[in-house]
Amino acid sequence: MNVVTKSLSADLGNGMYLNPVLRGNYADPSIVRVGTDYYMTHTSYHALPGLIIWHSKDLIHWNPIGAALHENVGDVWAPEFIHYQGLFYIYFPANRTNWVITASSPEGPWSKPVDLKIKGIDPGHLVTPEGERYLVMSGGELVRLADDGLSVIGEPQHVYDGWKYPEDWEVEAYSLEGPKITYRNGYYYLTVAVGGTAGPATGHMVVSSRAVSPFGPWEHSPYNPIVRAASKKDRWWSKGHGTLVDTPEGEWWMVYHAYEKGLHTLGRVTMLEPVEWTPDGWFTIQPGIASHLSIAKPPGAAGPHGWPTEDGLRGGEIGLHWQCSGHLPQKRFRPGADGLVGDGRTEGSPLLYMAGHESYEVQVKVTVQGDAEGRLMLYYNDAHYLGIGASSKGVRHFRSFKNYGAMPCPETSVYLKIRNRENTVSFYFSTDGTAWSKYDKVVEASGLHHNTLGGFLSLRIGLDAAGEGNVTFTDFVYRPL
Amino acid sequence: MNVVTKSLSADLGNGMYLNPVLRGNYADPSIVRVGTDYYMTHTSYHALPGLIIWHSKDLIHWNPIGAALHENVGDVWAPEFIHYQGLFYIYFPANRTNWVITASSPEGPWSKPVDLKIKGIDPGHLVTPEGERYLVMSGGELVRLADDGLSVIGEPQHVYDGWKYPEDWEVEAYSLEGPKITYRNGYYYLTVAVGGTAGPATGHMVVSSRAVSPFGPWEHSPYNPIVRAASKKDRWWSKGHGTLVDTPEGEWWMVYHAYEKGLHTLGRVTMLEPVEWTPDGWFTIQPGIASHLSIAKPPGAAGPHGWPTEDGLRGGEIGLHWQCSGHLPQKRFRPGADGLVGDGRTEGSPLLYMAGHESYEVQVKVTVQGDAEGRLMLYYNDAHYLGIGASSKGVRHFRSFKNYGAMPCPETSVYLKIRNRENTVSFYFSTDGTAWSKYDKVVEASGLHHNTLGGFLSLRIGLDAAGEGNVTFTDFVYRPL
Repeated sequence: MNVVTKSLSADLGNGMYLNPVLRGNYADPSIVRVGTDYYMTHTSYHALPGLIIWHSKDLIHWNPIGAALHENVGDVWAPEFIHYQGLFYIYFPANRTNWVITASSPEGPWSKPVDLKIKGIDPGHLVTPEGERYLVMSGGELVRLADDGLSVIGEPQHVYDGWKYPEDWEVEAYSLEGPKITYRNGYYYLTVAVGGTAGPATGHMVVSSRAVSPFGPWEHSPYNPIVRAASKKDRWWSKGHGTLVDTPEGEWWMVYHAYEKGLHTLGRVTMLEPVEWTPDGWFTIQPGIASHLSIAKPPGAAGPHGWPTEDGLRGGEIGLHWQCSGHLPQKRFRPGADGLVGDGRTEGSPLLYMAGHESYEVQVKVTVQGDAEGRLMLYYNDAHYLGIGASSKGVRHFRSFKNYGAMPCPETSVYLKIRNRENTVSFYFSTDGTAWSKYDKVVEASGLHHNTLGGFLSLRIGLDAAGEGNVTFTDFVYRPL
Repeated sequence: MNVVTKSLSADLGNGMYLNPVLRGNYADPSIVRVGTDYYMTHTSYHALPGLIIWHSKDLIHWNPIGAALHENVGDVWAPEFIHYQGLFYIYFPANRTNWVITASSPEGPWSKPVDLKIKGIDPGHLVTPEGERYLVMSGGELVRLADDGLSVIGEPQHVYDGWKYPEDWEVEAYSLEGPKITYRNGYYYLTVAVGGTAGPATGHMVVSSRAVSPFGPWEHSPYNPIVRAASKKDRWWSKGHGTLVDTPEGEWWMVYHAYEKGLHTLGRVTMLEPVEWTPDGWFTIQPGIASHLSIAKPPGAAGPHGWPTEDGLRGGEIGLHWQCSGHLPQKRFRPGADGLVGDGRTEGSPLLYMAGHESYEVQVKVTVQGDAEGRLMLYYNDAHYLGIGASSKGVRHFRSFKNYGAMPCPETSVYLKIRNRENTVSFYFSTDGTAWSKYDKVVEASGLHHNTLGGFLSLRIGLDAAGEGNVTFTDFVYRPL
């Protein structure tokens, strides 16, 4: 697909990094280490291919190496990514049940999803020293897994009630979520999220409890909350859903997610902070660490990072950096030597790319046939979007709640560009990709996020074909500003 | 209706005032002076009673004295309020045409709306020295009115093109709007809005042009733009849609509207700034005036200001501070000695009160019968709202995109309270109005505004009855924090 550059990592180049380690709406991170390799996956909603697998050697540089889900089983929320007896497993909730998929290599191929037929969300996996496998569910339920991990045995049993914060704390909801187990020195440490996953700045937090048996009794950490935004003045809001991971050298880190203040449109990004074990057998974020300041890098080799930022869209296959909501891209978009062809007569999702920067430009060349319109969009969901489209009638701006008049454009092969500068969005078009005309509308898009619209989504970049005809897309470029 | 206190005005009590002069979504102000009395009305959307008439003696204290529209003729946008030969007129656009209503007193009674059958929006009225009457429409069209002002003569004629700002200015759209005419020293001064009415901070502005004939040619002011936000760091965004008014003493002022930064949920409020005429026959805002700082008050007597902030809701009629969207309140709500009764089996709008402060508490007592639910809401439109409801099942929080579980409540007569602190919204309930329980969900509501959802609306307070039965409302209190 003529891919050239890759987006920049959090590595500052001086032995330090600055959060986030993964930009874009990569929430509910689940991480697993195998030797010197780290693998991570996230909530992927209805996006397909879903459950993107990210690989790193240093916890800072994250490279997408595959996708574990290729069919629509519903709204995929917080997954659990584990490696057990030579096999990789991802447990995840969707469509009011929970599923498991397996692969011998994280790149895949991954199995078809197996329905575990258990309620609750956010399964967390644990193995006892005796080799019994369990899932801990969001409400504090424990359910036994068969030895192969592909079915449950018996009924879930309530074993855990989360730590209670003071009633006057401003949180979105209690929402005990994302239980993750770390077994260390004879204790099961349960790292969970409470306080809701979005809402006010101080909603959501990471809290910790421990027990010598997964059936409890559970003791709450005296250091709770382990991670939480202090106020709406913080740069990082709604911090929570943490998972511990250790390095081959025995250092401990936590990945979690957060919203950036004023940039909820970007969704929840993946954060990384170093963890310290206390003399009394608990853990905290290392003293002196601040989420908005630089932090010394973990050991490990730097590798490639992030999505391609240029894609000629000519020939080959549709890259992993493209997804659709509710179906695979191939349902509506066909790669070809002359470009990626979208059919306006088909129904479904735009082709979506993950925006990850507070300011960026994105452009694509569209060639329209017949009465088709080629579109470059910022897309939250099928009820909330905005963009610029080119057709034989000219170039026009549209929003989900309003259509605007077309500005004349002599060509049906047009470069479209969107500039998003801290949620102020402007639109440009060009017949040669060099001399640009500015469309005379600008949008203030800061409110297009979960707290307003629900769904935990983000404002993604979309390519779409509408109307009676085909649209050929080429020369896609995403450029952080 | 047991009304007690009134909300506070912009008067600082030391001879100065601080904008806004009218809080709440009071956009597109149109103002008229008759002797020492000022009258003002605004865009009222689908709200009924609509076109609320505000009275003032000093341009600072504004008292609602009536409503000019009692039937649904569509989405009512920028009106023109004039006094001509002893009669008050309001010209306004709605439903792809323009209307006129008249009254001999601004309190009413107002006539039924007369359809002028002309396109365009935002009519501005002018009278030539010869007594010919015209409307100037948003696109720069001039159309003759009959001498009685109740019909048009002939076709609209394009006479005006607005001032063009540099192409690289960040605006929502060009949108030539709100033409208002001031005749002074042989010139027609056309005060118009361009740059869109919302969108980015620097979209929207007041610009000025003049001509010796209403047919032109028009000369643009060298002082343009007269009013405009400088950047997104400003407190007041999207400043525009200005109208000049003079005092009996011959001083000049401008009313216009603006969004407060970070508080777009409140809609566009009415601002007031002093105007100065220049030696070359133009006008500007007085040098040294800043929208976010205090300003010396105009002359004139202080009077009552704003809406009642307490309403027992017992007996009498439904106060003017209550409106519904699309129909009169009486369609769904019936005043009575024991309280205001809403019928959950009727369809339509909640009963809406205008929120006007960055932080406030609002509470009401609901008594539910049968399977009804009594609701206290923050309401943008019928697709976007949130609130707290009481029914025989307990007290629950709801959002337009999600229902939450009920918390137990032993009574069916319950006080409900919403606290909105700078868009962080929490919910409380009480069986005695003294001891409050906090509902365990908090909402971050900053994105519920026009830039996200369209419609130019605001987050209003709503009372509603849902389900199979009646709800009785009493003891409404709105308290700025």
